[in-house]
Amino acid sequence: MTSLSLPPSRILGIDPGLRVTGFGVIERVGNKLAYIASGCIRSPDGTLPERLKVILHGVQEVVDTYQPNEAAVEIVFVNVNPQSTLLLGQARGAAICGLVSRDLSVMEYTALQVKQAVVGYGKANKEQVQHMVKRLLQLAGDPQADAADALACAIAHANGGAAGTALSALSAASTRGKKRGSRLVG
Amino acid sequence: MTSLSLPPSRILGIDPGLRVTGFGVIERVGNKLAYIASGCIRSPDGTLPERLKVILHGVQEVVDTYQPNEAAVEIVFVNVNPQSTLLLGQARGAAICGLVSRDLSVMEYTALQVKQAVVGYGKANKEQVQHMVKRLLQLAGDPQADAADALACAIAHANGGAAGTALSALSAASTRGKKRGSRLVG
Repeated sequence: MTSLSLPPSRILGIDPGLRVTGFGVIERVGNKLAYIASGCIRSPDGTLPERLKVILHGVQEVVDTYQPNEAAVEIVFVNVNPQSTLLLGQARGAAICGLVSRDLSVMEYTALQVKQAVVGYGKANKEQVQHMVKRLLQLAGDPQADAADALACAIAHANGGAAGTALSALSAASTRGKKRGSRLVG
Repeated sequence: MTSLSLPPSRILGIDPGLRVTGFGVIERVGNKLAYIASGCIRSPDGTLPERLKVILHGVQEVVDTYQPNEAAVEIVFVNVNPQSTLLLGQARGAAICGLVSRDLSVMEYTALQVKQAVVGYGKANKEQVQHMVKRLLQLAGDPQADAADALACAIAHANGGAAGTALSALSAASTRGKKRGSRLVG
């Protein structure tokens, strides 16, 4: 089991959206990753400013509750519809404001980087990402899709965004799983 | 001179942008509009989260300084380049977060609505808008372009976004100008 020289860290990952903003909190100690919390901020109704306020306050509440010291946000897909792109941009802006208003520094990762770091393959599908998130964090159940994406983003950040590092963390997790008699070992 | 039945109000107008966010504060008492302040929040450098933080904190500072009780934000132009649209959306999201984080309700106006309300003509050019902003608020000099757009948005809101109302306000302003021996009368 290799030991990374990274300091312990609590990482908040965010998957922004106008209707649903996923969040996931993990802890990294050495090369071990532990699940802390995950969930969704829902902002389906109201005027745009009202919905942005829900996202802003929701992210601030998550920060206040789980006290992360690092944050990672997924770089959103640029939609073919300019109006949707603009709306998504505003939602993402609100989510980032929730983080920077709490003085968190924010790193950004593309979906490609997240997939590369979590699955080791940039073109992995949603199910593969969710499967690896579940394994890496030794989760008993499936996290909600947006929460899983947020956790994946946090994992990518925990591993310095580097491909391959997640796999060594998985190997460590599997070893721990074996020791504990977990059924997560592949 | 007609008297509008609107209560006195201090209005903050915002013209959002990633590099420059214009702001303008006006006061409406009856059908009279008065200039309070205007300027720009500049966020040219840094990572995107850092720039959004500058916008967020800048707008909050304007709110804290001038204590508006209403806010109006221009609905931004959807760029042909999706990446620019996304960036602009995020900047606009940050500006709106600056307002809603201070519990201001935010109204949105399209450029067409602003021009209609300020110039009485939806296809007015930038110079015509600036000219009317200067006249309506009896300004001695030209405000910076982004600040002028923000003031125009505040004026549109002050007049209920309705075309024509700005003209009656102008007529009142001109009358005041005449009484004071101002050279603003056309």
